[in-house]
Amino acid sequence: MIILKLGGSILTKKSSTIPQIDSENLERIAKEIKKSLDNHNKKLIIVHGAGSFGHPPAKKYNIGKIFKNEEYPLKRIGFSTTQNAVKKLNTEICKVFIDNKLPVVTIQPSTFITTSNGRINYGNLDLIKKYLDEDYIPVLYGDVVLDDKLKMAVLSGDQIIQYLAMNLESDRIILGTDVDGVYNKNPKTNDDAILFERFNSMDELDSLDSTTNVDVTGGMIGKIKELLELADIGIDSKIINVNKKDFVYKALENEDIKGTVISKK
Amino acid sequence: MIILKLGGSILTKKSSTIPQIDSENLERIAKEIKKSLDNHNKKLIIVHGAGSFGHPPAKKYNIGKIFKNEEYPLKRIGFSTTQNAVKKLNTEICKVFIDNKLPVVTIQPSTFITTSNGRINYGNLDLIKKYLDEDYIPVLYGDVVLDDKLKMAVLSGDQIIQYLAMNLESDRIILGTDVDGVYNKNPKTNDDAILFERFNSMDELDSLDSTTNVDVTGGMIGKIKELLELADIGIDSKIINVNKKDFVYKALENEDIKGTVISKK
Repeated sequence: MIILKLGGSILTKKSSTIPQIDSENLERIAKEIKKSLDNHNKKLIIVHGAGSFGHPPAKKYNIGKIFKNEEYPLKRIGFSTTQNAVKKLNTEICKVFIDNKLPVVTIQPSTFITTSNGRINYGNLDLIKKYLDEDYIPVLYGDVVLDDKLKMAVLSGDQIIQYLAMNLESDRIILGTDVDGVYNKNPKTNDDAILFERFNSMDELDSLDSTTNVDVTGGMIGKIKELLELADIGIDSKIINVNKKDFVYKALENEDIKGTVISKK
Repeated sequence: MIILKLGGSILTKKSSTIPQIDSENLERIAKEIKKSLDNHNKKLIIVHGAGSFGHPPAKKYNIGKIFKNEEYPLKRIGFSTTQNAVKKLNTEICKVFIDNKLPVVTIQPSTFITTSNGRINYGNLDLIKKYLDEDYIPVLYGDVVLDDKLKMAVLSGDQIIQYLAMNLESDRIILGTDVDGVYNKNPKTNDDAILFERFNSMDELDSLDSTTNVDVTGGMIGKIKELLELADIGIDSKIINVNKKDFVYKALENEDIKGTVISKK
């Protein structure tokens, strides 16, 4: 089974003032997935980020931060607002997938997952297994969930991936972003940025982190740490740029493309 | 805990060629719910129908009917399409509720319920209980689900209500429709239609069904049978017309309003 992550940045238009999906990009990605599935059937789960739909309300209402009891009524509305925003994004994304004949089934995280201090402590995957057995493509996404310590938390797509990979029989993970992989500096602002083709160990990452100016964007280090934990149990990941034509297709076909591999091999 | 059902007919515009919610009606209903909750806090679950969003795709793809294996790829797309359509409806309804400061949390049925021959055989309600404990308003809706005999089935809001009422501590059920209750004939086309103020037993219903021209619209008899089963275990229901101003509010406040009561008392 393959897990394909589609980062929020490639799904939604950052420049738009109102949350808007990037239909053109999504259409192309949907077609590439369909082409690969038509080649030979494979089990696939898609996990997408919250993008410009989920982050603004989650930030506005400080979801996941400690709060006083008298703030709870407002926080609940924040939870409701964020849940509904990411649900809207998911519905729009699924529409594009369905229009391209992909049998996607949304599995809403807040309906079956809870966390403790932001980490998943409960999530029954039986239904996801059943949908996979019936050749559907389960789609999950970054969501808000109940938390036994913080009352509520933001559950990232990345944590969902780790949880799914650890608890289902996952062969490999493809992480679609808008850059070619992990660089030592931000490649968008530094022409001399160097791409890491492979990460094998936490040590390697830690040394980079402390000795060089690793400008790996938005929590990339945390992301790699989670992926290294998966590599420890034999599940490899590859970070690729899905804004590049045919990269989703080639990654699904396991062809050799540019990107950063996280593996112990 | 009160379960409030909002029928699809009062949520969506029947006359519209493209699926559209009835925002004006929903706004009013949301305000009435808020007013009642502000009076004194009460546990509430809302269940809504699929309306003009869900029925067309479910019908087009014959969801719930036996099919040949070679039809499965198309049926899967039917499942995906229907799931996404009712999700869209739910998102639009929730938006109106949230705008009116109701802390609604969607619990997507297809994520945690399965059926056997169209009847629920699995559904873990732990998370719904947790959301109720935290004073959210869980919102469920008519959806498509995996079925161990038929592969896929339509799960009606009415069946969800019965399942929730049986398995959670439900005090009473309010069923919001666009008629004043159950009549012996269709009240929209028959001026002499008589309203039943109360149903106490299956016998009563069976005799009506066989001896009179009970034009109770769209599966109302089946609905009453399910509600009589609940009455057997002490859970009363009331069918009311929520197109009438203040009826949702008064029903939540347990005031005496026109409608049909299903009770053993």
